[in-house]
Amino acid sequence: MVDVAIMGASGYTGGELLRFLKNHKEVNIKAATSRQFNGINVSKVHPHLRGEKIRFKDVLLENIDVDLVFTATPHGASMDIVPDLIERGTKVVDLSGDYRFDDISVYEKWYGLDHSAPLDAVYGLPEVYRSEIKKSNLVANPGCFPTGAILATLPLVKENLVETIIIDSKTGVSGAGIKPTEVTHFPNCSDNVIPYAATIHRHMPEIQQEVSKWGDVKVSFTPHLVPVIRGILTTVHTFLKEDITSKQVKEFYEAFYRGEPFIRILDLDEMPGLSAVRGSNYCDIGCFQIDCNGRIVIVSAIDNLVKGASGQAVQNMNIMFGFPEKESIDINGLHP
Amino acid sequence: MVDVAIMGASGYTGGELLRFLKNHKEVNIKAATSRQFNGINVSKVHPHLRGEKIRFKDVLLENIDVDLVFTATPHGASMDIVPDLIERGTKVVDLSGDYRFDDISVYEKWYGLDHSAPLDAVYGLPEVYRSEIKKSNLVANPGCFPTGAILATLPLVKENLVETIIIDSKTGVSGAGIKPTEVTHFPNCSDNVIPYAATIHRHMPEIQQEVSKWGDVKVSFTPHLVPVIRGILTTVHTFLKEDITSKQVKEFYEAFYRGEPFIRILDLDEMPGLSAVRGSNYCDIGCFQIDCNGRIVIVSAIDNLVKGASGQAVQNMNIMFGFPEKESIDINGLHP
Amino acid sequence: MVDVAIMGASGYTGGELLRFLKNHKEVNIKAATSRQFNGINVSKVHPHLRGEKIRFKDVLLENIDVDLVFTATPHGASMDIVPDLIERGTKVVDLSGDYRFDDISVYEKWYGLDHSAPLDAVYGLPEVYRSEIKKSNLVANPGCFPTGAILATLPLVKENLVETIIIDSKTGVSGAGIKPTEVTHFPNCSDNVIPYAATIHRHMPEIQQEVSKWGDVKVSFTPHLVPVIRGILTTVHTFLKEDITSKQVKEFYEAFYRGEPFIRILDLDEMPGLSAVRGSNYCDIGCFQIDCNGRIVIVSAIDNLVKGASGQAVQNMNIMFGFPEKESIDINGLHP
Amino acid sequence: MVDVAIMGASGYTGGELLRFLKNHKEVNIKAATSRQFNGINVSKVHPHLRGEKIRFKDVLLENIDVDLVFTATPHGASMDIVPDLIERGTKVVDLSGDYRFDDISVYEKWYGLDHSAPLDAVYGLPEVYRSEIKKSNLVANPGCFPTGAILATLPLVKENLVETIIIDSKTGVSGAGIKPTEVTHFPNCSDNVIPYAATIHRHMPEIQQEVSKWGDVKVSFTPHLVPVIRGILTTVHTFLKEDITSKQVKEFYEAFYRGEPFIRILDLDEMPGLSAVRGSNYCDIGCFQIDCNGRIVIVSAIDNLVKGASGQAVQNMNIMFGFPEKESIDINGLHP
Repeated sequence: MVDVAIMGASGYTGGELLRFLKNHKEVNIKAATSRQFNGINVSKVHPHLRGEKIRFKDVLLENIDVDLVFTATPHGASMDIVPDLIERGTKVVDLSGDYRFDDISVYEKWYGLDHSAPLDAVYGLPEVYRSEIKKSNLVANPGCFPTGAILATLPLVKENLVETIIIDSKTGVSGAGIKPTEVTHFPNCSDNVIPYAATIHRHMPEIQQEVSKWGDVKVSFTPHLVPVIRGILTTVHTFLKEDITSKQVKEFYEAFYRGEPFIRILDLDEMPGLSAVRGSNYCDIGCFQIDCNGRIVIVSAIDNLVKGASGQAVQNMNIMFGFPEKESIDINGLHP
Repeated sequence: MVDVAIMGASGYTGGELLRFLKNHKEVNIKAATSRQFNGINVSKVHPHLRGEKIRFKDVLLENIDVDLVFTATPHGASMDIVPDLIERGTKVVDLSGDYRFDDISVYEKWYGLDHSAPLDAVYGLPEVYRSEIKKSNLVANPGCFPTGAILATLPLVKENLVETIIIDSKTGVSGAGIKPTEVTHFPNCSDNVIPYAATIHRHMPEIQQEVSKWGDVKVSFTPHLVPVIRGILTTVHTFLKEDITSKQVKEFYEAFYRGEPFIRILDLDEMPGLSAVRGSNYCDIGCFQIDCNGRIVIVSAIDNLVKGASGQAVQNMNIMFGFPEKESIDINGLHP
Repeated sequence: MVDVAIMGASGYTGGELLRFLKNHKEVNIKAATSRQFNGINVSKVHPHLRGEKIRFKDVLLENIDVDLVFTATPHGASMDIVPDLIERGTKVVDLSGDYRFDDISVYEKWYGLDHSAPLDAVYGLPEVYRSEIKKSNLVANPGCFPTGAILATLPLVKENLVETIIIDSKTGVSGAGIKPTEVTHFPNCSDNVIPYAATIHRHMPEIQQEVSKWGDVKVSFTPHLVPVIRGILTTVHTFLKEDITSKQVKEFYEAFYRGEPFIRILDLDEMPGLSAVRGSNYCDIGCFQIDCNGRIVIVSAIDNLVKGASGQAVQNMNIMFGFPEKESIDINGLHP
Repeated sequence: MVDVAIMGASGYTGGELLRFLKNHKEVNIKAATSRQFNGINVSKVHPHLRGEKIRFKDVLLENIDVDLVFTATPHGASMDIVPDLIERGTKVVDLSGDYRFDDISVYEKWYGLDHSAPLDAVYGLPEVYRSEIKKSNLVANPGCFPTGAILATLPLVKENLVETIIIDSKTGVSGAGIKPTEVTHFPNCSDNVIPYAATIHRHMPEIQQEVSKWGDVKVSFTPHLVPVIRGILTTVHTFLKEDITSKQVKEFYEAFYRGEPFIRILDLDEMPGLSAVRGSNYCDIGCFQIDCNGRIVIVSAIDNLVKGASGQAVQNMNIMFGFPEKESIDINGLHP
């Protein structure tokens, strides 16, 4: 058994971490921190946890004595917490953007923050970095859009099939977090589709960083808010440099992800959809269709709060401690 | 380990039974039958089961040799199947309406069918009939509306507090089944609320039957379709015969359901909602508010496909075989 | 041509008033006030008005020189503005609750405010008070729930058919206003149904006041938030004191509302729905079904922002000035 | 006054044509045909038309004696009707795909039908073909996706700024028509995003045909179904051949569409959304952002049933008869 703490447990990713970890056979949740809700039962914020006996605590960092901390803290806040934890020998899975970038200047440019405490971290995409994650004390959990986009893209890049990639993503509203805003106001976003940060979303350089490691390609990215609670449907459009069939492309994907516990490559007559992955840690990848202009379409579907955040964080923890990788996240999607 | 079969596994309740049973430690799914999809992998109909190796089979009744059968067959079809199974010593949990009524004439009137094969069955509401279920070979799984309505109502009736009960239910569209109709067409039911069978829904006599066993009350029932995928929110309106406080009423509910694994009585400052039970077998009960006319409001929330159908069916199976009652259905709701 | 001003034009009711009034043949919009958005084109807040040349202004009350003012101001704010306007001879349609109550103490109790400036006002329900509205300088525009509930109820009360009335309403989220809150956050209210103020909503005494004028009945009221942008579906449950048929009840309604331009009594085989009235000033009334316990169900549907607010306000203005009653609000619903 | 008939008036486009034409000052609706609903009031199918006295008729083609016919008939059916009408001197606006293609072989390939009766027709996009429409007796009303896509694209092509264009469209479910299918079943498409016909949608060659007239570019097109009733949000991704600013591109668009009554070019700090055009004939165009790879994003928003179908059909009729172009379709969007 390992002791874990969740720092910043009152957001959606905190709620999902609690949903998984409370059923984890090897984990003891020692603290779920929240300054605002100190002393309150978690179910007052996360009603699906009704019946659980866990209360939020406002714990001083120095009093946290656990084996691993999930920092579900905002961008810019993690860098104030993580170095102390690492120094004390606590493992960390950080869900913010603070440790995702190889080049600090890229982070500082796109996040508009000075980085006070750079550290060596592993980018927590198990399908790519599993062996590094195993040995790491600090895993930077990927962003939600990058998870769906990178997984949908790498095999094409690895096979040197493409040069420029256009990623058009459609995200559920929970991706905007638990705090109400004008954009997430039901009368505004229901029955609507809203492109945002059309060319300047900070998940773009994160995708670019990872994709560039596999080939010389340029990534363009535009996200859209759709009236969906959970899920990201990513549509990758890119022109093939050579003549190849859908079947061959599908085989590249199957080879690339062989044995991966959470990747499902779909048949050519299927199409990824959000309900198949809702609430689950799966990433479904499919489509593979090629049009008369040589454009191929790859589509991936994830749950932004699970494979796009907390589920992947637990997957990373499982790898870091040598637990079975699917422990506590071996859950089917909720369809319908 | 027991062998089970699901007859009529291609509907929503079949999909949910598969979702639970595939993780059940004591159960081996021997057959998931479907005439229409014979030979097809279940994930082609139930995409959340992608990756499972289960195929639909079209099995003759006489070739089904299992310990228990879930008959997820339409009303009127179960009565053609169940007697044979019972005769051969197979246990049955029937999800149709065919065996829910004590008085066959009530069934025949409200379902417009002749009942060809009446049998002794136990009404599968564990909170009321647990000991009978334990000894029964034929459990009639309750209807979705009755589950939410009866559980929200019984303590009031038992305490002899009310005479007439008005039940106003709001159901998600999955309650209409997997087959598309004009009513379930997205442009018709999205952004809309649709009352239907306002005074003649056949779940009314089912609720009346069970409530009558606890007191002399009359039940009126009106369901509404709301633009929600899963869930039933039931609002019970009834006038109290005596002066009593919300706190006292809440205590009656707590006493009535003490120790129940799937009933959660909410605090007076909470309100049941669908996301807290989404995908789970819980029934949340709360509100308890009393207005200046002596009307009390009780609200319950269930997932119509889980506590209102397949989850409760598994709960009944667990009781029939002496398995831990929460086995394979110990799942949190999916919020947000 | 008359000059009008809209005070508090940056909310949803302000946006709807602008939508109607800009097409009104007899009206000149002289000011749409907003302190927050002073100088900004209205389309930055109300995007459907894109292309209109109207800007918000922050106008001092004493500088408003128009024939009629729509006060789309919050409860408690109207009473600071209206008396001055009335004194200067300006007609007022007030969309707040400040002038809806005959008995100030009821207002003060349910709104938790001292009323600084009571005035004689007419309750702006044209179907009941048309002749009084015609002569009035101050019309208190009804609340959204009361509009749907009162219209669905009066004929039953007038005919002395009922004693206690239970009103179960389902409202779209725009009823909560333009300001984002936890309740209106898409991940919270989408795919959900949320009862609120189950026995203490301040629209209850408003409904009770109007219904009491037609008979000695007690009104109980519970609203629910449903994942719909616009619309209120009101389900009235009440026990009939005498034996009567659905057809007879329907005839009472037809007689009561004969000639009304915005009331549509539905056939017995139809059911009101929100899309039929979406964006329009109609109130559809139907159902009329009676169950075996003598309970009758009446259902009404309105658009909460139109017949439940701004459309009815324009209707009142049309009556006050002797314009054709449907001028600028003769609009069909938007279905699908 | 001109007499018009709507053939195939029981679908969504028929319902919208009725909504507009009943308010048209110069039009008399002489027939709304439907074989299936012969003799039935239109409001039984189109509930928002409740109160109108129009009944569906099953009229023989030879008995239709009107000035203009809207053929809201399925692809393949129009070609059986239109030639007779044209021969008799009746003007036609055809809402099917039958007369949209310059090259019959393209039609036959993509629609999988032999074309029995090719005729000269004008492509009914007023922003491009207004003068031809004015003189034509047969106008082929554009498809819904092409309307949004072509309008968003032409100025870029005209200025010779791009070579390949990727169009990623998100459509509301009403685009699938009034007939329920598995895809439009609420539990399947709600809370979901579904790409379909990812590389083979027959609106692609229609877009390509029109765009090719302005420059040598290749169009790739992928539509997605989103949980929205009405509206198409089109995201155009394309790489600029030269260095140019967003402001300059916006100016090209403003110049191209100067004076157009239904095109609104948005400011650089605005973004098109569906609620701003809901129920209206406007096409909003905006975004104009350019990323570091030289990709520009253009976004358009239309109501698929209005500018994407029936509203544009009325606009075409207005042009054909010299009526004011906005007559009966001068309607604001319905926001929220």
